[in-house]
Amino acid sequence: MSEKRTDIKDLGEFGLIDTLTKNFTTHVSTTLKGVGDDAAVISISETEAMLISTDMLVEGIHFNLMYTPLMHLGYKSVVVNLSDIYAMNGKPSQITVSFAVSSRFPLEALEELYAGIKKACDFYQVDLVGGDTTSSLSGLVISITALGTANKKDIVYRGGAKEYDLVVVSGDLGGAYMGLQLLEREREVFKANPNIQPDLDGHDYLLERQLKPEARRDVISFLKELEVVPSSMIDISDGLASELFHICKASNVGCTIYDDRVPLDAKTSMAAIEFNIDPITAALNGGEDYELLFTVKQEDYEKVAANPNFTVIGHITDHASGLNLVDKHGAVVPMQAQGWNHFE
Amino acid sequence: MSEKRTDIKDLGEFGLIDTLTKNFTTHVSTTLKGVGDDAAVISISETEAMLISTDMLVEGIHFNLMYTPLMHLGYKSVVVNLSDIYAMNGKPSQITVSFAVSSRFPLEALEELYAGIKKACDFYQVDLVGGDTTSSLSGLVISITALGTANKKDIVYRGGAKEYDLVVVSGDLGGAYMGLQLLEREREVFKANPNIQPDLDGHDYLLERQLKPEARRDVISFLKELEVVPSSMIDISDGLASELFHICKASNVGCTIYDDRVPLDAKTSMAAIEFNIDPITAALNGGEDYELLFTVKQEDYEKVAANPNFTVIGHITDHASGLNLVDKHGAVVPMQAQGWNHFE
Repeated sequence: MSEKRTDIKDLGEFGLIDTLTKNFTTHVSTTLKGVGDDAAVISISETEAMLISTDMLVEGIHFNLMYTPLMHLGYKSVVVNLSDIYAMNGKPSQITVSFAVSSRFPLEALEELYAGIKKACDFYQVDLVGGDTTSSLSGLVISITALGTANKKDIVYRGGAKEYDLVVVSGDLGGAYMGLQLLEREREVFKANPNIQPDLDGHDYLLERQLKPEARRDVISFLKELEVVPSSMIDISDGLASELFHICKASNVGCTIYDDRVPLDAKTSMAAIEFNIDPITAALNGGEDYELLFTVKQEDYEKVAANPNFTVIGHITDHASGLNLVDKHGAVVPMQAQGWNHFE
Repeated sequence: MSEKRTDIKDLGEFGLIDTLTKNFTTHVSTTLKGVGDDAAVISISETEAMLISTDMLVEGIHFNLMYTPLMHLGYKSVVVNLSDIYAMNGKPSQITVSFAVSSRFPLEALEELYAGIKKACDFYQVDLVGGDTTSSLSGLVISITALGTANKKDIVYRGGAKEYDLVVVSGDLGGAYMGLQLLEREREVFKANPNIQPDLDGHDYLLERQLKPEARRDVISFLKELEVVPSSMIDISDGLASELFHICKASNVGCTIYDDRVPLDAKTSMAAIEFNIDPITAALNGGEDYELLFTVKQEDYEKVAANPNFTVIGHITDHASGLNLVDKHGAVVPMQAQGWNHFE
C-alpha cells in the first residue's frame, strides 16, 4: 500500500465508485450495461435481458433498530432493491438475501426480519433463491440482490434524456424524510425521558413512507398501458436533486424544474413547517421516497398528464444551461445535489 | 416480537437458514432451484439457465486485516463466489461487489482491494457489473454475488448422488487450514513481541492456499473433455466432512470414505504434525480449500482415475449406513461434520 492516504469522505459515494471501477474492462459479450445505472443489464436471448441490482443496509447508517420494527426492515430491504429493477422498466423475479448478525439477535428477531422479507416476496411475486448468513462483531448488515427481466427494447437507462423532454415524477416526495425526522425527534425525547409516550399520532402517512415504503410497480404497468417508454428513468432513493444530477450527467443534458410543481403531500408540508424545514428542501434533498423520476417526449404530455399518479415538474435543457430550479416568483437558482453521502 | 429467545448459536448456520426460509413459496416459473445448493438456478431459455450465488465476508470473522493483504482479500472474495458457480458445473460471467467500510480506510486501501477484485475478474474472465458502497460503524464487510450460465442438462446439484457412485475430490485438502494456523501463530508471536520477524519461510504453498486460493475452473474443463457429468457436486469451503454431509443429506444417501485416500500435500501433513494436528483432521474439518467434491458413476472410474487432478476417496452407500470413515487398519468410525459455525 502506498503512503498516500486520501480520505474517502472527500470523494462521496459516487466519486468513490467511479474511482474504484474505472480500470475495469468488459470480458463477456452478454454484459450490456455494467456499473452506473439502477441495475446492470445482461443479455439472455436476442430479445430478452436480465437485470441485476444490489443494496447493502447497515445498522446505525441506514436504519436504527430503536424505532425500526424488524418486520418493516425486512420488507423495506426487499422493496428498495425491487425499486431499482422497476427503474429500468423491468419486472423483478428473484432475490438473494445475505446478512451478518451478532449473537445478541435471537432467532425470533431474525424470524421477524424474514417475515417482512416474505411479505414483500409474496406481494411483489418474487422468489427468495439464496443468500449467505454469518456472524458480525457489531450490528446487523443486510445485503440484498434482485434479479429481474425485461424486453431489451423496453429497458430505460439514465442516459437517454433529450433536450425538451418533460421531467415527470410519480407520487409525492419528501414524506419519507419527514417521517425520519419525526422518528428521530421521538428518539431524542425518549432518550431524555423514557417514561414519555411517543407522540406520533396522526403521522401514519409519513411514518409509513419511512418505515414501509412500496416500490412503484404500478408505474411500470401505467406506462405499458399508456404505451409510453420513458427516455430515461431512475428511482428516487437519495432525493430528487441527486437523481436529477444522475440523469443529467448520464444524458449530458441540463434541466429546469419548477418548484411549485414538485408534488408534496399536505402532511409532508405541515410536518416540514413544524420542523422549520422548507418543504421543497425535504423533496429535493430528503431521501428514500422510492418514487420514479423519468423523462418523456413532449408528444407524450397528454398521456402522462392524464394519470393522477404522475406530475410533470419541468423539462430537459441543453447541458450548458445546467440544472436549475425556478421558484414561484420566476427566480432561477442553480440546483445543489446534496443527496446522501454515507461517508460524512 | 415474542418473548421467547432462541440462541442462534444453537442452530448453526445451516439450521438457521432452514428455519428462516422454510415458509417461503415459489411464485415465478423460471426459478428452477432456490435456496439449498451452491447456486440458485434460473431458467433463461429452453436449454439455458442462469446461476446465482452470493457470499458475505466480515472482518474479524472471515479475515483478519493484520495478515491479509487487501489485494489478496479482494481476489479471494471473488474466487469463493466463482467456486460456487463451478460447483454447479457452470461458467461464471458477472459479479456485483458491495462493501461497507469505516472511514479509517483511506481510498488507497480500497484501491488495493479493487486491484485484487480486478485481477480475479481478468483471470476468470468475468465482468464487474454493479454493487453498493456504504459506510460501516466498525470493520469491513464485503458482499459479492456471482452470476453464471450453464446448459440445463449439464447442471450438477448436490442431490444427485446414488448408491455405489464414486466419491472424488480435486487437488489436495487441508492446506488452507494449515496456512491459517501458521498466520495465527505468527500473529500471536507478533502480539507478544512486535520486533520478532515473522517465521513464514518455506510455507509459501500453505500461505497461498489460505490467502490466494483459486477456483477450480480447470476441473469443469476436464470433466467436459472426459465427457463425465458428475451425479452430484459441491465446493469445499467448510471442510470435506461438512460438504459430504451436504451431499449425503441432499441425495438421501450415506458414504464410506477411506482416510488414507484423502489427498494431502506433504507440506500440509508436515505442518499439521508440527501443530500437533492429525493431518486428516485438517482435511476433514479445516475449511477454505475451494476444491471440488463430486460423485460419478462407477463406469466413469477409468476416466476419472487417469486424471492426476482427481482422487477417488470412497463411495456412496445407502442412507441407513450413514457417513463413515475407514482408517488404514480397516476400522470404521462414523464421521463428524464440524464445519464452521460462524455463530460459535
